[in-house]
Amino acid sequence: MSTTTPNKRLNLGNINPHVRAAKYAVRGELAVKSEEYRARIAKGDGTDLPFKQVISANIGNPQQLDQKPITFFRQVLSLLENPMLLEHEDVLVNQLGYKTDVLQRAKTLLGNVGSVGAYSASNGVPAIRQAIADFLERRDGFPANEGDIYLSAGASSGVNTLLHIICADEKSGVLVPIPQYPLYTASLSLLNATCVPYYLDEAKDWGTDLSAVKDAYEKAKADGVDVRAIVIINPGNPTGASLSEEDIRSVIEFAQRERLVLMADEVYQTNVFIGQFHSFKRVLRQLQKDEPGKYDDVELVSLHSVSKGMVGECGHRGGYFELVGFDPAVQAEIYKFVSITLCAPVIGQCLVELMVNPPREGEPSYALYRQEYDGIFEGLRERANALHKAFEQMEGVECGKPQGSMYLFPTIRVPPAAAAAAEKEGRTPDEFYCLRLLEATGVCVVPGSGFGQKSGSLHFRTTFLAPGTDWVGSIVKFHNDFMSKYS
Amino acid sequence: MSTTTPNKRLNLGNINPHVRAAKYAVRGELAVKSEEYRARIAKGDGTDLPFKQVISANIGNPQQLDQKPITFFRQVLSLLENPMLLEHEDVLVNQLGYKTDVLQRAKTLLGNVGSVGAYSASNGVPAIRQAIADFLERRDGFPANEGDIYLSAGASSGVNTLLHIICADEKSGVLVPIPQYPLYTASLSLLNATCVPYYLDEAKDWGTDLSAVKDAYEKAKADGVDVRAIVIINPGNPTGASLSEEDIRSVIEFAQRERLVLMADEVYQTNVFIGQFHSFKRVLRQLQKDEPGKYDDVELVSLHSVSKGMVGECGHRGGYFELVGFDPAVQAEIYKFVSITLCAPVIGQCLVELMVNPPREGEPSYALYRQEYDGIFEGLRERANALHKAFEQMEGVECGKPQGSMYLFPTIRVPPAAAAAAEKEGRTPDEFYCLRLLEATGVCVVPGSGFGQKSGSLHFRTTFLAPGTDWVGSIVKFHNDFMSKYS
Repeated sequence: MSTTTPNKRLNLGNINPHVRAAKYAVRGELAVKSEEYRARIAKGDGTDLPFKQVISANIGNPQQLDQKPITFFRQVLSLLENPMLLEHEDVLVNQLGYKTDVLQRAKTLLGNVGSVGAYSASNGVPAIRQAIADFLERRDGFPANEGDIYLSAGASSGVNTLLHIICADEKSGVLVPIPQYPLYTASLSLLNATCVPYYLDEAKDWGTDLSAVKDAYEKAKADGVDVRAIVIINPGNPTGASLSEEDIRSVIEFAQRERLVLMADEVYQTNVFIGQFHSFKRVLRQLQKDEPGKYDDVELVSLHSVSKGMVGECGHRGGYFELVGFDPAVQAEIYKFVSITLCAPVIGQCLVELMVNPPREGEPSYALYRQEYDGIFEGLRERANALHKAFEQMEGVECGKPQGSMYLFPTIRVPPAAAAAAEKEGRTPDEFYCLRLLEATGVCVVPGSGFGQKSGSLHFRTTFLAPGTDWVGSIVKFHNDFMSKYS
Repeated sequence: MSTTTPNKRLNLGNINPHVRAAKYAVRGELAVKSEEYRARIAKGDGTDLPFKQVISANIGNPQQLDQKPITFFRQVLSLLENPMLLEHEDVLVNQLGYKTDVLQRAKTLLGNVGSVGAYSASNGVPAIRQAIADFLERRDGFPANEGDIYLSAGASSGVNTLLHIICADEKSGVLVPIPQYPLYTASLSLLNATCVPYYLDEAKDWGTDLSAVKDAYEKAKADGVDVRAIVIINPGNPTGASLSEEDIRSVIEFAQRERLVLMADEVYQTNVFIGQFHSFKRVLRQLQKDEPGKYDDVELVSLHSVSKGMVGECGHRGGYFELVGFDPAVQAEIYKFVSITLCAPVIGQCLVELMVNPPREGEPSYALYRQEYDGIFEGLRERANALHKAFEQMEGVECGKPQGSMYLFPTIRVPPAAAAAAEKEGRTPDEFYCLRLLEATGVCVVPGSGFGQKSGSLHFRTTFLAPGTDWVGSIVKFHNDFMSKYS
């Protein structure tokens, strides 16, 4: 980190201290260093490096690695960007392989948005909100209302909006799982609100242990924190854990009892290898049906995104959130808040529509869509298992079976000499390990401390998105060398 | 506004009070009402309305109205969305009218970004930052550094980032012109920082009167405000005023003397009808050259966007800001801040590249680009003049000549009976006037109070983007009826 320049009007001593306090390791020091390596290699200036390429396993960015976009989606988007192509339907169909449903969808979306270069309504294009509501209804078997849906620039922007509304001052607390995706702790730091961490149970495949939640909640309350909401990331990031219906039910019951807003980050809802995804919305609606009256006041928001799953369109910054049980007057404030930044990117909004309303059986684009979708899913599963197998062979590394999301989050144990060497550098042992891994192999992962971990435990998060097995082999080799060196 | 539900966990009494305090009239009550009218008309449910269409003159959204996107831009974007089209170069060129420079640009950009579905670096694609630096160098005649450029989701997101860094607490003050684009006051409200208003001089075509700036600054300082920055919107929004080089120089001198960060909102830099655009960066560099040493410590940020100008691609949420003279340690904090929301939309970043690096003379797409660009410019000027002419004929309305941006901001004087009727409704007279205008004509404009105006004066802001003259005629007719009714 560079030192500050005190004679500048803005310096580290006087800028917003909450920005300074925020931590975001996923794109921190290691990520910056890995980009420097990548730039050197691209310039031909990396011949002295012990690796030939950088593998960015630090961030769930499928299309930076091997994942191809889904053809139907991109064909439609190309027509939205250049509607004049629609004047040449025969060329599109007969020479460029566009199916008729691609043309039809593009026309419908253009009818809805006008131009993708125009601002939409602040909460998103009405017809796209309706398409999301229809999807939620199909998914959950309960109605959804387009007026409760807000398009956002990826789920991150939705989280930012919601935490801005929820947190009134430094006493406002939000229960956040640890380990967690650091967007939550960083956003709470920026808002100068209180993060109330609850620990996930590694011994039980990173399950949500309600007694840990209760303990964290009671302790915070005793400390004078006004705990207002609980974040659940399901399937988990970085853990991949997928909650059972029973676990979700008990979280909802707890939130109902303690009057906590439920914030369900469900962006990995299609990345599930073990068990199945249960949406908070469906489980809540079922509880409301089963015990009329009791759950009427529960406030739930669930978030989704085009960035993950088999879509993997991170760069398009598309997402949405659905509010359930919110005060209409609060919703009006949310509408005003999102108005200030005008609207989510319109082409990203259209991609949300395509995600929630993909080609169906019998439609011309269905076969290819299905094949691509399933191929991506299987590819991710295979890579996850290959990486897991490698971790199983590594001394001092423990890793549960891949359950979902795009990550593995192994525990590592390092010899005392390595911990001492880390301390000498002013780093935690996991930072030290990950930095040495990057320097030796070009593989960039994120130290567990970037997500939070129980004191005394060490982890790192790696995506399993990169193709091939060379990089996995290079991790194994590095690990063995590291362990020998410090044993 | 709906009333709140006190038994909800989140209600108007306990959510973030700074969100509640923020005002954003551009998309406020009138805009919401106009969308309701639009929806009714679309459903065939508006036959009892006294108008057949809604004209959204409340927001600078060119492509919602008549403005066509520039062909070169959209052709390139269509290839970025579906790179498989590049496997059919002959079809593109011989049957679809794509020129070879379109194909070449798409290939270059794809080489730079990989996939538009992948996250880029947090501060933007390096090659696009370089293209912006090259543009700034051509525009200003002084070097620019890609490392000082940050891509953003439109200029709004850049303003949000910068105010987050600048404002440390409620004592932090920012000088903001009045009238202003309400993003500034709204963002300062959200941050609970202090807006220090300085009034523009309507009598001098809304020029920036340095003595007004000084008075506002001194008064705020005396009140204990730690004034840190000054916002200048040039060309002005909502006023259209374009600053002279001399005015810019005096603002820079003032900022240098008082150690204020200069925040130059230059998104309308190509929308200039009278005089010419002078960038703060160029004038600053010239001062630094002329008087070595004196201006070295000046900190300037300038913002630009794809949303305005002849590009008009609001829905793509593309923009950037350039930092000049900032502390590198503060820049590292800005980098971290933008990391938390990952990156600006990548297709929007590509559109920034196209905006700053359009086809040049001699290139295949140049002739059409030039023709489209000039056509849009002339169309805007003609519409601005037609609207201005109508205002000149209206009793109690005064409006300076159209100078730039996309707006006119006439003064209105309403009869005392109208002011009394407004008070009865709990509205300001300008809100009352604009609401009646909407109800009578379907034309949606924004009351001057949404931008700030001197006490006792009344205005409204209207874009001059809508095609045709019918809507202008309907404003004149409404105005005459309104004046008769309340005289």
